[in-house]
Amino acid sequence: MHDESQVYRRQGFGAGLGVRPPVGLLIVDFVNGFADPALFGGGNIAPAIARTVPLLALARERGWPVAHSRIVYADDDGDANIFSQKVPGMLGLKGHSPASAIVAELAPRAGELVVRKNVPSAFFGTTLAPWLTQRGVRTLLVAGCVTSGCVRASVVDAMCWGFAPVVLSDCVGDRAIAPHDASLFDIGQKYGDVMRLAELRERLS
Amino acid sequence: MHDESQVYRRQGFGAGLGVRPPVGLLIVDFVNGFADPALFGGGNIAPAIARTVPLLALARERGWPVAHSRIVYADDDGDANIFSQKVPGMLGLKGHSPASAIVAELAPRAGELVVRKNVPSAFFGTTLAPWLTQRGVRTLLVAGCVTSGCVRASVVDAMCWGFAPVVLSDCVGDRAIAPHDASLFDIGQKYGDVMRLAELRERLS
Amino acid sequence: MHDESQVYRRQGFGAGLGVRPPVGLLIVDFVNGFADPALFGGGNIAPAIARTVPLLALARERGWPVAHSRIVYADDDGDANIFSQKVPGMLGLKGHSPASAIVAELAPRAGELVVRKNVPSAFFGTTLAPWLTQRGVRTLLVAGCVTSGCVRASVVDAMCWGFAPVVLSDCVGDRAIAPHDASLFDIGQKYGDVMRLAELRERLS
Amino acid sequence: MHDESQVYRRQGFGAGLGVRPPVGLLIVDFVNGFADPALFGGGNIAPAIARTVPLLALARERGWPVAHSRIVYADDDGDANIFSQKVPGMLGLKGHSPASAIVAELAPRAGELVVRKNVPSAFFGTTLAPWLTQRGVRTLLVAGCVTSGCVRASVVDAMCWGFAPVVLSDCVGDRAIAPHDASLFDIGQKYGDVMRLAELRERLS
Repeated sequence: MHDESQVYRRQGFGAGLGVRPPVGLLIVDFVNGFADPALFGGGNIAPAIARTVPLLALARERGWPVAHSRIVYADDDGDANIFSQKVPGMLGLKGHSPASAIVAELAPRAGELVVRKNVPSAFFGTTLAPWLTQRGVRTLLVAGCVTSGCVRASVVDAMCWGFAPVVLSDCVGDRAIAPHDASLFDIGQKYGDVMRLAELRERLS
Repeated sequence: MHDESQVYRRQGFGAGLGVRPPVGLLIVDFVNGFADPALFGGGNIAPAIARTVPLLALARERGWPVAHSRIVYADDDGDANIFSQKVPGMLGLKGHSPASAIVAELAPRAGELVVRKNVPSAFFGTTLAPWLTQRGVRTLLVAGCVTSGCVRASVVDAMCWGFAPVVLSDCVGDRAIAPHDASLFDIGQKYGDVMRLAELRERLS
Repeated sequence: MHDESQVYRRQGFGAGLGVRPPVGLLIVDFVNGFADPALFGGGNIAPAIARTVPLLALARERGWPVAHSRIVYADDDGDANIFSQKVPGMLGLKGHSPASAIVAELAPRAGELVVRKNVPSAFFGTTLAPWLTQRGVRTLLVAGCVTSGCVRASVVDAMCWGFAPVVLSDCVGDRAIAPHDASLFDIGQKYGDVMRLAELRERLS
Repeated sequence: MHDESQVYRRQGFGAGLGVRPPVGLLIVDFVNGFADPALFGGGNIAPAIARTVPLLALARERGWPVAHSRIVYADDDGDANIFSQKVPGMLGLKGHSPASAIVAELAPRAGELVVRKNVPSAFFGTTLAPWLTQRGVRTLLVAGCVTSGCVRASVVDAMCWGFAPVVLSDCVGDRAIAPHDASLFDIGQKYGDVMRLAELRERLS
């Protein structure tokens, strides 16, 4: 994306936000159905889940607020919406279906927030924003999947709601790499900082 | 994006929404500053503006509700935010600055809504959603710029708020073509229908 | 409230909205814990529940969209908030606790929306607004409890989101009558129409 | 309201929130049109404005974030809504009309936020919540008018968005005293703390 980068640089995009405490962590949709290539998974999602294990451990060590999101539709499909019209298989993600359960290695602990949503952003139709506000969060670390879908929508909303997003590029994954890369480019130019977990560790030390 | 398309097809993405009345039209950020390559413009934005002229004429003929958005920051920068941290030049878009005025060929008429925003989505921090709801809008046609930024964010929010988005692919533009194409791909798979103005005309007749 | 009424009339408050299809019905927090005077109930809540039974039957006969709300906090209190700081007993309303279950005589049917919330308004942090928007609702009938709390907050938000509220005065209840009356007065002056179920039936016929 | 108080006390309402920094100040709709009894004013609004002068001075001395709200409708009435259907005179509050200008003694200074709204709550359709979030605000002091309308709606939303409201009872006013009193009662029981400016000063010292 050489040409694109030049335009963006010339027009003054891509300034850095930095990491400022209090820090929070949002893990978007790392559920079984998105870990499974036969359902909604594939691409680089599996390694992103593996890299999020130490990220979550770090957040818990530091005592940062941690929030998780799941896609959940009503058992009777009564809340079917435009998103499920575009992607009918989403309606299979029910409150008690294994496909909608958070992957075992990232299972939420008491005190962590778990929001149910039926649209891309973890902020839409949930209480995530006030939950983070009450905890004074300034920098919101973001992991999860998929980069070009629910992660990106959540990052845009995080920025809008006043939380400076830092996307951990090796802790987000997508079923296809070109959309993953394109969204990381857009995020870094316009919505948040993008760095690897190793770089985050350096900045914190 | 051949490989990507296969994964998405196999997982059941990309169903069509169709065009159902009442129809509304949203024109995102077609302001002088985004028409000007020396500010935030470039790429295929100019032809997208030109194509939106007949689209707007069609909407007015049909009596569809029309909404426009502008990026506007306070004169004293008192509402500077994370978006303006990432892209400091945005703070130059003030209520009375020519750069923030809608381009002359698409100037709003009485009864059309003009929302001021300081984030990507035309829905965030504005009264666009209730305005469309009061008019019963089901299908929301979307034109504007930039495809990978404010258009895409507005399309995602339109879907969330219950309006089925139809993006007119020749009436949206971006300063760089790769992000434009990547966002149209993502939108078509997950958030709305994507078609050319000519195809919309066919469907309506 | 004779004096108050004069001021409001002189300043032009209290115009009527009318009943315009498509009509929807929202039933706010008619759950066991609010039917029980030993928990959060009392006052005129019990008769309001009884009057809502025929209202709900009417809505189902007519095929109107019906939505219900419940207050639900996370099992681990991880989403405790300012509302639960003010009223600590609210934290007893959990997903599986009988106190948070909708009263048997108004049990939701398949296809009706049930939103979980942990604040007063049924719109806040839920997908109620887009659900009503997708169904094209113009007039939103409101029943539930308590009038001066979750009903009133939901009515204000309904108006903001573009749904014209009609509060059925004998289908809303409160644990104390003075706040009930004061809120019906305010609603009628500023936010919606207030009428008895019998009057609604007359208007519809 | 003796009987009411007993029910609320027995059910565990009315716990205190306290004053915790960072503190912010929200001044709701203290504009000329609400200061004028011939338009939307009257009651105890004038003394509330007078008492807000030293409150605003205190906030500026302490360097607290300060936000103001105004009701503003579009010059062409293109954003007329359900609120303006209930109260048609509201449409007279335009961007440049003196009635919509903040009263001279409380004129905003550079760096203070001024939000335009066309519904009761200062949070709805504005960027007030993210603006406060970015400033880390925990306790939100609230002054303004009218107590039973835009103040109350803003207090409910403040609580929902994660800001603990403290209403200064002598810095809020209403065109009629019974609704003023009823709303202060409800707020104190369910949404925020209610105290006089003198008591706030004591707590801070």
